[in-house]
Amino acid sequence: MSTIYLNGHFMPAEQATIPVMDRGFLFGDGVYEVIPVFGGRCFRLAEHLERLDYSLLEARIASPMSHAQWQRTFERLIELHGGGDQSLYLQISRGVGAEREQRFSADIKPTVFAMSRPRGAAAELPEAVACIALEDIRWQRCDIKTTSLLGNVLMTQLAVEAGADEAVLIRDGCVWEGASSNVFVVIKDVLYTAPKGRYILGGITRDLVVELARQHGLECREQALPVSDVANADEIWLSSSTRELTPVARLNGNPVGKGAPGPVLRKMWDWYRSFRQQLTR
Amino acid sequence: MSTIYLNGHFMPAEQATIPVMDRGFLFGDGVYEVIPVFGGRCFRLAEHLERLDYSLLEARIASPMSHAQWQRTFERLIELHGGGDQSLYLQISRGVGAEREQRFSADIKPTVFAMSRPRGAAAELPEAVACIALEDIRWQRCDIKTTSLLGNVLMTQLAVEAGADEAVLIRDGCVWEGASSNVFVVIKDVLYTAPKGRYILGGITRDLVVELARQHGLECREQALPVSDVANADEIWLSSSTRELTPVARLNGNPVGKGAPGPVLRKMWDWYRSFRQQLTR
Repeated sequence: MSTIYLNGHFMPAEQATIPVMDRGFLFGDGVYEVIPVFGGRCFRLAEHLERLDYSLLEARIASPMSHAQWQRTFERLIELHGGGDQSLYLQISRGVGAEREQRFSADIKPTVFAMSRPRGAAAELPEAVACIALEDIRWQRCDIKTTSLLGNVLMTQLAVEAGADEAVLIRDGCVWEGASSNVFVVIKDVLYTAPKGRYILGGITRDLVVELARQHGLECREQALPVSDVANADEIWLSSSTRELTPVARLNGNPVGKGAPGPVLRKMWDWYRSFRQQLTR
Repeated sequence: MSTIYLNGHFMPAEQATIPVMDRGFLFGDGVYEVIPVFGGRCFRLAEHLERLDYSLLEARIASPMSHAQWQRTFERLIELHGGGDQSLYLQISRGVGAEREQRFSADIKPTVFAMSRPRGAAAELPEAVACIALEDIRWQRCDIKTTSLLGNVLMTQLAVEAGADEAVLIRDGCVWEGASSNVFVVIKDVLYTAPKGRYILGGITRDLVVELARQHGLECREQALPVSDVANADEIWLSSSTRELTPVARLNGNPVGKGAPGPVLRKMWDWYRSFRQQLTR
């Protein structure tokens, strides 16, 4: 059984429990991060910690650790799992209340939970997957990486049961992101992805892709596209810490472009992999 | 310390813990009910259990107990707290997963948690309260009584910090409900409340108020009103299992009507109290 971190202590996962009065359990009142670990080191740690700070600020949970403390905690956890490539999960809930009531006091002590598991960094471009498009039922603050995720859970499950790997989410007729990924679309050699704001969770991998596109002179427009444009796109990809860059072969059962992966994704994959390798060299 | 119910066992609250891998903690993946207990008996139990079944069905969590089993469990919990007037809380999460992943399998065993605490049934109409109006940031399935409540938590907290007791929530320019209550509005002796659907949680007390209005010949229209109509209303009330019927004295700092409680609420209060007393006699 694997070792996890809970409120200052490392312990076997099966001993890790929280009180039923934890607001994370009662209200989904918490935020989280999933941080890829390559070669024993957190990938884009500064960016993940900045996003964590943003989620904490917007959820109005006081940050329980400094960046240096987070880093030391993560390093110890990664070491306990033997280094290499891992996926690290961090969750912070607002803490344990005396009563079940929505209002909270400023002096409540957050619950901090982290775990990590081995996972390989993709050596080659991941296999192409199928997606379905669903009306986005989530809230208006998708920019907060909250554990109040029932909407995402239900949409993901619909996708799985339709034989797909991910749900691509529609709001006001446009594609914004996936249930647990960001969505990139290529039309006539231009790369599109939805702009940051309240309708998407600005992924760390998403930002890196935008950065790499611009570095390499690939035109990239941060713009949410109508579903019909996406359905007729040359390429569709998903990005996330877990999926890295994953080509979409079918949307709602229809093939995407001339087959996945397309040429633009192949280029991006090379840029991305080089960047990733710099870190682990 | 009070006794709670967790997964088949009654135990002291301080011993009640759940694994960190419970999907209720990781994903806010659960539903709940708050059931008022008057004179040792659950108020409108059948209606609460029907709503629970609806939430479970829509959240796709298999119901872990029959209505008769729920009733026996609640009766034992109420008895352990000495009967009388209580507020009973029931939460069902999808259960503990082996991995943290949004998708779920049908054979996962739900986590069942219930607790109760003493509370007096209001002898007189509750004190009038202040409300502020906020843009509703919640998801599109407010009809599911889910524990993914960060949106409600944040809006409630804004209300509290503005010196108000409740946030009245606006969607598309209309008032739909409160962060933890339904909203009733009286204009020229007609009672208005938002229709059931995806934008509100159909309260059991709300339904009773609509029922009582119709029984007693008070015209009641299920219709969401524009904010300006609500701001100029003769009366505004909140309803919930916890608040029962609570008059609103101020909305966004401005007085409501000619002072709260108004004459229509006074009538409704008498009807409601008579109905409540029938149960406990």
